[in-house]
Amino acid sequence: MNDLVITGSLAFDAIETPFGKTGKIIGGATPYIALSSLCFGAKPHIISVVGGDFSSGYFEILRSRGVDTVGVKIEENSKTMFWSGRYSSDMNQRTTLKTELNCFESFNPEVPASCRKPKVLMLGNITPKIQQSIILQMEKRPDLIVMDTMNYWIERTPEDLEQTIKMVDVLSINDEEARLLSNEIVLKKAADKILSKGLKYLIIKKGDNGALLFSKEGGIFFVPALVLDSVVDPTGAGDSFAGGFSGYIASKGKTDFETMKAAVVAGSVTGSFCCEKFGTENLQNLTQEQVKQRVKQFEDMTRFQIEY
Amino acid sequence: MNDLVITGSLAFDAIETPFGKTGKIIGGATPYIALSSLCFGAKPHIISVVGGDFSSGYFEILRSRGVDTVGVKIEENSKTMFWSGRYSSDMNQRTTLKTELNCFESFNPEVPASCRKPKVLMLGNITPKIQQSIILQMEKRPDLIVMDTMNYWIERTPEDLEQTIKMVDVLSINDEEARLLSNEIVLKKAADKILSKGLKYLIIKKGDNGALLFSKEGGIFFVPALVLDSVVDPTGAGDSFAGGFSGYIASKGKTDFETMKAAVVAGSVTGSFCCEKFGTENLQNLTQEQVKQRVKQFEDMTRFQIEY
Repeated sequence: MNDLVITGSLAFDAIETPFGKTGKIIGGATPYIALSSLCFGAKPHIISVVGGDFSSGYFEILRSRGVDTVGVKIEENSKTMFWSGRYSSDMNQRTTLKTELNCFESFNPEVPASCRKPKVLMLGNITPKIQQSIILQMEKRPDLIVMDTMNYWIERTPEDLEQTIKMVDVLSINDEEARLLSNEIVLKKAADKILSKGLKYLIIKKGDNGALLFSKEGGIFFVPALVLDSVVDPTGAGDSFAGGFSGYIASKGKTDFETMKAAVVAGSVTGSFCCEKFGTENLQNLTQEQVKQRVKQFEDMTRFQIEY
Repeated sequence: MNDLVITGSLAFDAIETPFGKTGKIIGGATPYIALSSLCFGAKPHIISVVGGDFSSGYFEILRSRGVDTVGVKIEENSKTMFWSGRYSSDMNQRTTLKTELNCFESFNPEVPASCRKPKVLMLGNITPKIQQSIILQMEKRPDLIVMDTMNYWIERTPEDLEQTIKMVDVLSINDEEARLLSNEIVLKKAADKILSKGLKYLIIKKGDNGALLFSKEGGIFFVPALVLDSVVDPTGAGDSFAGGFSGYIASKGKTDFETMKAAVVAGSVTGSFCCEKFGTENLQNLTQEQVKQRVKQFEDMTRFQIEY
């Protein structure tokens, strides 16, 4: 009953930061989302595609932790998507060294029967058309449909994007994207304009400045980012946020504003863990105790008692 | 017993933003600090200097609301400091059109006897040497000494600044200044390094991304900025933050971390009011009910209940 269906890329990444360099590690959006959702008790199912080079060891990283990969199509004669990137010495800039879409270029998802009635559907950042196709394959309207997108789709496929936004409940974007999508500079005005497209909730992520949650009824909630001693690798932080967020909702089974507020905190918790090690490494090995402690850190960081 | 002594500039400002243009209005740091401190029950006393052109009407803006101006020296044969500036159409950039220091150039404060035993001393952004001179004139060590500074003093008078920092309890700066002062990029490292100079608390302001409070014991607290429909004039927002912060502490008479947390919320409340109208206009006319409602907005914006 806490089923969470996730779609997006499943890939190989090679990452270089001032703290080190990885080989070909498991990457793309879905592993971050799925592993993060586990922290809050969701049962995640991935819909994606990989090539014949995605060996069983990579699947095992996901399956051994309870991530269902039945919906991952294996194209034996093709190669898995590959991305490599390098961060600047101050970590503020990322340069993409290589993007090979490979089998992901012709990704045409077929949702298996077992994945057509989830509580929550989390649409990772892919073409709006594919996001739509996943929604249309649902047998029952999920309690909540969440979508991620990016400037690329806002600029290249605005009409498809508008159509997809109309079909979902929650849109998650960053502040630059919110301004781009709304043509408004003031964030509050941007949020109002985007919500009026038919969304119930809008999340505007501000990187290490936290995230804002807006409801169509006018509610506003803010969650800060944790103040970390060091960020080893920010790759996947946004996807980890989406995973903690959607995973929390799937496991609670409620979609009211109070649940959404807790869910963005859950997303910030998993986002913070993600940045502390390379790739999904930290997310693969979290204990319940670590998650609990970090939730408490967020509580300590935001609770105040003002005598007035 | 809720005395708050404030030092800094008292000036005329002329401000231009996309929303309009003011004439010569009351400005400088101290009016913003003093008027904001009133919102939370402080009894503010200003130590500053003005010229013969600072007519009684300007004094009346302060005195009629309960701000003590006994410590404001009037140099009859000189002119009051004058600053004018213009904001860009997106409000992200400010151009200084004119700065005439006038009588403020030779400001050599004499603290009147009635202002030498405050609960809290708030040192606005002026030369570190003058900040020191004020501290040295205190008869009794205030419960808390708070200081503001800026990149100008970090770069031009680093030794004086280091000396002054050693004499105070709380330093309030923005994120760029924190990085400049510490030579650290990662904010947590910058905070640790600055706190080690002998401070009890450090506030790092992040503009419309809120503010962080660090304690020397390792406590971290975050307060967001309010999401405003529109910012009419951000001049004085930092000083208004300082006023709400120091005013809250003066009126509570406690300096523990929990009080500091509430005080940065108080500072964000007054900072948000400041931006909604030109100059100190909004701060001059606030009702207790307005302050109360805004405090509640901050509570609503940050409270969450995560079931874990």
